[in-house]
Amino acid sequence: MTIRDFKTIATNRCFDGVQGVYSHASTETRTTMRFSVFTPPQAAHGPVPVVWFLSGLTCTEENVTVKAGAQRVAAELGLMLVAPDTSPRGVDDGGETVPDDPDGAWDFGLGAGFYVDATEAPWSRNYRMFSYVATELPQLIEAEFPADMAAQGIMGHSMGGHGALTMALRHPGRFRSVSAFAPITSPLNCPWGEKALGGYLGADRSLWRAHDTTALIADGARCPHILVDQGLADGFLDSQLKPQLLEEVCMATGQPLTLNRREGYDHSYYFIASFMEDHLRWHAAALKE
Amino acid sequence: MTIRDFKTIATNRCFDGVQGVYSHASTETRTTMRFSVFTPPQAAHGPVPVVWFLSGLTCTEENVTVKAGAQRVAAELGLMLVAPDTSPRGVDDGGETVPDDPDGAWDFGLGAGFYVDATEAPWSRNYRMFSYVATELPQLIEAEFPADMAAQGIMGHSMGGHGALTMALRHPGRFRSVSAFAPITSPLNCPWGEKALGGYLGADRSLWRAHDTTALIADGARCPHILVDQGLADGFLDSQLKPQLLEEVCMATGQPLTLNRREGYDHSYYFIASFMEDHLRWHAAALKE
Repeated sequence: MTIRDFKTIATNRCFDGVQGVYSHASTETRTTMRFSVFTPPQAAHGPVPVVWFLSGLTCTEENVTVKAGAQRVAAELGLMLVAPDTSPRGVDDGGETVPDDPDGAWDFGLGAGFYVDATEAPWSRNYRMFSYVATELPQLIEAEFPADMAAQGIMGHSMGGHGALTMALRHPGRFRSVSAFAPITSPLNCPWGEKALGGYLGADRSLWRAHDTTALIADGARCPHILVDQGLADGFLDSQLKPQLLEEVCMATGQPLTLNRREGYDHSYYFIASFMEDHLRWHAAALKE
Repeated sequence: MTIRDFKTIATNRCFDGVQGVYSHASTETRTTMRFSVFTPPQAAHGPVPVVWFLSGLTCTEENVTVKAGAQRVAAELGLMLVAPDTSPRGVDDGGETVPDDPDGAWDFGLGAGFYVDATEAPWSRNYRMFSYVATELPQLIEAEFPADMAAQGIMGHSMGGHGALTMALRHPGRFRSVSAFAPITSPLNCPWGEKALGGYLGADRSLWRAHDTTALIADGARCPHILVDQGLADGFLDSQLKPQLLEEVCMATGQPLTLNRREGYDHSYYFIASFMEDHLRWHAAALKE
């Protein structure tokens, strides 16, 4: 894949590093994709470890970039932070408008790519967020940023927690650290997941297992010790997120997991901000070994 | 003034404190006004010091609340943070729509109250942000929140830096700590200020001096040692902000000032976030003496 139309949209100095927003013409999604990168000051002296942050439903690359307070800690620890968008958007290279949920719902279509490569029409033309995040964007990051691709970690929130965990489980050896805030632990077992995977991948639920954290672990996939923080006042806890499913499969299979249940915390970026430092230190400890 | 229609719009647990957004029916502006309050965990044990944050042009109470990363430090230091909106908005209690800049410009009218009480029509009906911030909202905070009103600090950004400095200079003894990020130092000497004070207060520039930091200091007003951070890559530095005017008048009059010029930093919240911890520690040091 070649890098096309790579552009810098904005850069701001932040904690002595550079917070940038960039775009490029994605081959996978056929659209212009935006992403953010925080380059820490240590990158002036050579490549630095990279931590990916995959965002949740309705988000773009902007939410975590402006709301999570991550740059302070990343600047201290010398971590690059990369945040992709959550779906293709706009008009693609064939002049077609990227389709959205027919009812305009926020849990499918735009802002809700679910980190899969859709196989069902009309989604399959643009909704290729698995390959975009797993292959195309890393190639761009490696080519254009001072990133040490031998030291990658991945984290995410909600739908992006699902994305981070499945990415790590599907790419053994690539990520040396893994964490999630309030992840969707099993799309097979929640309404968000059933709608998304049913829509993007079709009705055959056996095909969903490759995009279900608990199924992947049950089927033998492993990744580095997983850190999860989950707020107990999260309105989606019982209906969508179900951390106990992750806990059970990790216990049964020996996949290492640290699951912190946080009294009073909800699903918002105020929750994420409160524990971002813990997560980045978790990543740094593994990435700097 | 009585407190009317005080409502909690949202609360989120954040760094073991509570980040809330609230509204009330303001007597000063005749509109529903929103504001945010971060209540730190220490407030469970009694009233805590209060730091006011006045925001800049185009902002609401939301910008600093979600972008500045202030809660982490405030939670550690036991500071309450209060962020008002920057203008009246919407339809007032007489059924009149709050007027905006006739050209829809972002530097006057909505989002640009400039922390003055307008005397010119049609602005004088609703644009009373000086009295709102100086009198009405503090009464509400004192009545409804665990705030130690004997330990108040004030800070702000850009137009809100102007607001913070003029509020402190106009209320000797009220604020024990004062700081600003990239403040407008002299509305008398910049296009933003000339437009705003000309519009709200009329053409007699002698009336503007009561809302001009450098004029107030030149005229004898004093406040606690002022901390200012100013980015040197700020696109408004030379045309609007002019920190040298503040530096000169403080030097000439003996008003204590620490002015940090920050290489590479711009006017954004990435700049504010980078130095928020320094400012909150500055406030805490004075407020906890």
